[in-house]
Amino acid sequence: MSTLDLETARRIVAGARAHAREAGLKPLTVVVLDGGGHVVAVEREDGSSNKRFEVGFGKAHGALSLGMGSRSLMARAEQQPFFIAAVTSAVGGALVPVPGGVLVRDAEGTLLGAVGITGDTSDNDEAAAVAGIEAAGLSAQVD
Amino acid sequence: MSTLDLETARRIVAGARAHAREAGLKPLTVVVLDGGGHVVAVEREDGSSNKRFEVGFGKAHGALSLGMGSRSLMARAEQQPFFIAAVTSAVGGALVPVPGGVLVRDAEGTLLGAVGITGDTSDNDEAAAVAGIEAAGLSAQVD
Amino acid sequence: MSTLDLETARRIVAGARAHAREAGLKPLTVVVLDGGGHVVAVEREDGSSNKRFEVGFGKAHGALSLGMGSRSLMARAEQQPFFIAAVTSAVGGALVPVPGGVLVRDAEGTLLGAVGITGDTSDNDEAAAVAGIEAAGLSAQVD
Amino acid sequence: MSTLDLETARRIVAGARAHAREAGLKPLTVVVLDGGGHVVAVEREDGSSNKRFEVGFGKAHGALSLGMGSRSLMARAEQQPFFIAAVTSAVGGALVPVPGGVLVRDAEGTLLGAVGITGDTSDNDEAAAVAGIEAAGLSAQVD
Repeated sequence: MSTLDLETARRIVAGARAHAREAGLKPLTVVVLDGGGHVVAVEREDGSSNKRFEVGFGKAHGALSLGMGSRSLMARAEQQPFFIAAVTSAVGGALVPVPGGVLVRDAEGTLLGAVGITGDTSDNDEAAAVAGIEAAGLSAQVD
Repeated sequence: MSTLDLETARRIVAGARAHAREAGLKPLTVVVLDGGGHVVAVEREDGSSNKRFEVGFGKAHGALSLGMGSRSLMARAEQQPFFIAAVTSAVGGALVPVPGGVLVRDAEGTLLGAVGITGDTSDNDEAAAVAGIEAAGLSAQVD
Repeated sequence: MSTLDLETARRIVAGARAHAREAGLKPLTVVVLDGGGHVVAVEREDGSSNKRFEVGFGKAHGALSLGMGSRSLMARAEQQPFFIAAVTSAVGGALVPVPGGVLVRDAEGTLLGAVGITGDTSDNDEAAAVAGIEAAGLSAQVD
Repeated sequence: MSTLDLETARRIVAGARAHAREAGLKPLTVVVLDGGGHVVAVEREDGSSNKRFEVGFGKAHGALSLGMGSRSLMARAEQQPFFIAAVTSAVGGALVPVPGGVLVRDAEGTLLGAVGITGDTSDNDEAAAVAGIEAAGLSAQVD
């Protein structure tokens, strides 16, 4: 498999939501993108606020834009906020530099896409993304 | 019920996709928005091209923007293309005026949200949206 | 091969330019995108005007956005100009609906990316794109 | 010579990539712009992430926008982040204020264009740009 098909994306969404409910997280929005940064599947849980899709998309899209998990984008934003602001502008506005945007790789390390989750703390969002990716039998890269 | 919850959105997506597969349609992208025009659920079938989320979103978002199915937006675009172009700009760019953006109402006629589908002909996209909405026990408004 | 690597992109550029020089075409700009719509290689020949990169990018990006060669985008624009205008807005502005944006597929039909060429007539631009793609041993989809 | 022709741009790209491979750098994206800030040549090496063209373009475009290497843009961003943010907006969004955007001058000091490189550390990106410019027999201005 060298792309992220819909069935896999649905498994990631289901796995992330199962983790969230078991861990008692707040309502989440889960966004799954293919390697090109395009939407494959989204679910916004009841109570997750209006623009949570855009936030989750920005985490995953930012991760794919620079080829690193959004946790690394946060580290860079803390060191050089002007760099992350500039890249956000350069890529068209969709880059949210806090944890919760996680790259998806297969067993050979091939990049398949990314997951962006938002709704609870950034750390909890990231943990849900990792849980979803692993539930689909794939590897998560958080930084 | 006065809003479109995730479980209902998932039923709409499943119903639309079941219709599409039964009718032999091309791969579709199905976007479900709540009454505020915000994403609740999306699925892009394998083979549906890169920007189909944006197209489906534009159909549903345009429908909600003016409170009519996107079939009526097309009729207006044929009469007054400058009006539709102006509204598209005014609403931020997401308004695609061809059939396939369908309003969702409950039994009392309350507006709950909209569905946007793209991937086959506009007429077939609209038929899949109607099928999905009815599979969820709700009413579809195409114009 | 399920992606369009740089070496392949360079072969496409070289093939398209060789065709153009042999056929006596005007100076061309050749843009090669991967399947996600992201730049892999570009060459703008001397005398090709300022914004030719943007035009070539728009042809290739538009083709990938809707999954069809830009010749089909032109046909649709002639039938429903408001639809193409709306999709252009929905995808962020980069969609140029005239021939010269050609999809690249491998022997199995897998979509690898797209080529966008501009500088001569649209028909000649398209012919150069096809020549470049075939010079790299791949298949061209113009509509 | 008072402009940056394609053959020169190709030599810069080849020189920068040769340096990068010899120095063991990560996969780079190399963008060469003419004096007007328009794309002449681009190559994105395999493994360089989705939006690296946009980042490299932003470094080179920013350098040309204010007539200084992007290393000086970084210094200014550290002193007056609001100024760089404002200029970024004023020039349309493409200005990335970290090293790796280098002005290209001929022997008489005439400005010919700029190179933007991204993929490794900013310092390594800049070193590759300088190597490419010098491999083409031209002068590099990093600040």
